[in-house]
Amino acid sequence: MRPDRAFFDRLAEAARAETLPRFRSPLNVVNKEALGFDPVTEGDRAAEAAIRAIIASEYPEHGILGEEHDNVGIDREQVWVIDPIDGTRAFISGVPVWGTLIGFQEKGRAVMGMMDQPFTGERYFADGEHAWYSGPDGEQRINTRECDRLEDAILFTTSPHLFKGTEAKRFEAVQEKVRLFRYGIDCYAYVLLAAGHIDLVVETVLKPYDVGALIPIIEQAGGKITTWTGGRPEAGGAIVAAGSEALHAQALAILSGK
Amino acid sequence: MRPDRAFFDRLAEAARAETLPRFRSPLNVVNKEALGFDPVTEGDRAAEAAIRAIIASEYPEHGILGEEHDNVGIDREQVWVIDPIDGTRAFISGVPVWGTLIGFQEKGRAVMGMMDQPFTGERYFADGEHAWYSGPDGEQRINTRECDRLEDAILFTTSPHLFKGTEAKRFEAVQEKVRLFRYGIDCYAYVLLAAGHIDLVVETVLKPYDVGALIPIIEQAGGKITTWTGGRPEAGGAIVAAGSEALHAQALAILSGK
Repeated sequence: MRPDRAFFDRLAEAARAETLPRFRSPLNVVNKEALGFDPVTEGDRAAEAAIRAIIASEYPEHGILGEEHDNVGIDREQVWVIDPIDGTRAFISGVPVWGTLIGFQEKGRAVMGMMDQPFTGERYFADGEHAWYSGPDGEQRINTRECDRLEDAILFTTSPHLFKGTEAKRFEAVQEKVRLFRYGIDCYAYVLLAAGHIDLVVETVLKPYDVGALIPIIEQAGGKITTWTGGRPEAGGAIVAAGSEALHAQALAILSGK
Repeated sequence: MRPDRAFFDRLAEAARAETLPRFRSPLNVVNKEALGFDPVTEGDRAAEAAIRAIIASEYPEHGILGEEHDNVGIDREQVWVIDPIDGTRAFISGVPVWGTLIGFQEKGRAVMGMMDQPFTGERYFADGEHAWYSGPDGEQRINTRECDRLEDAILFTTSPHLFKGTEAKRFEAVQEKVRLFRYGIDCYAYVLLAAGHIDLVVETVLKPYDVGALIPIIEQAGGKITTWTGGRPEAGGAIVAAGSEALHAQALAILSGK
């Protein structure tokens, strides 16, 4: 039996209680060494611990893969994939495009997921079938938009400096074709794609917990997300997400180098 | 006599009524040619027209310099400097880091200003003496933070691609020294600096209306903003803003090429 939306909401609220008070906190200082501790890391760890405690209590038979603590039973049939603060640099800088990522896998396949942005009050959720948005402007089902040509697409990536060598060349080849590109948005880019505001996200060196929650949100909104060679994205690595099959194929033709 | 906070709020509300309904609108489509009009440009123009109408009615003796309509009496003693949607690319992409910029100058000097972000509900305001924040986490006076070394600083810029030739080299020399840098935040970077979340913003090819409202917010929060050669920033161009005198001097030493 799968967890329900209310359970995901409960996890997100528990994380929010640890993250939001530390966001833009005066303790989020210039020189964390002088302070003796790092409030971001502290928020990250506390939020994941809060999420894990609830899962362990309600679903002790599930595995947990998280960024901040040791993995638990990740060979089990049902596994939670957690990144309490995705976009640490955004968090540190006061920019509300970081998010709490809570993903749920069955037999290694991402099937449900939530991205929560506590400051803006936005929450994106994949229930196993459809993708949903709730936020300051209400609640609604979301879908990717039709954009079938790279020349019409809006592309996001976290930083162009993450691509090296051949990857950099291929990324730039995609970037040169699109209508508009932007940097620096982390997990927020994927939910904007799912909600039909942008068309393409290209990234690399991602960890499983960077994408675990986002895969079902994108897929259940009608988008496609794979590795640069077209494989399943659950393990992370070099990832491409697109709002349509056609656009995904065009990006993949360049990124795969085939 | 200077306008008061309530008047600035009224201008921001009038702009918001034109911008927010168009943000993330389904009309904000991939192919604006097919639609026959561009909702972003339309929102930009309508918001500025709404602001201008109120100013013309209450302060007909003031000049107005704006992005979208013809300038009016910009040699007058008191001039409003308006950018209805600063960060058009963020607006188009659904990222809530664009802002409505409303600045007020006396004898060519920026003395009051407001930056409004309607989606997050954040408003930053310089009243002629102090700088203020209001938003989902309350209202408070803001100050830049103490960060006196480039090595400790967080640097923002809209896009590294805006710098060419010598400017690019000097920007990169600053970027190489800082603790952390991020791209893609437009006017939002300046208010984060004023509120003490980041330390340095370096940009170029800015127009007067890109900085008019932000100058007093930064200065009245305790920061320093000038051109790359240390001159007054009201005319735009190549701009550097820092949270402290010491940090500004270090950045200027590199950016000025002296």
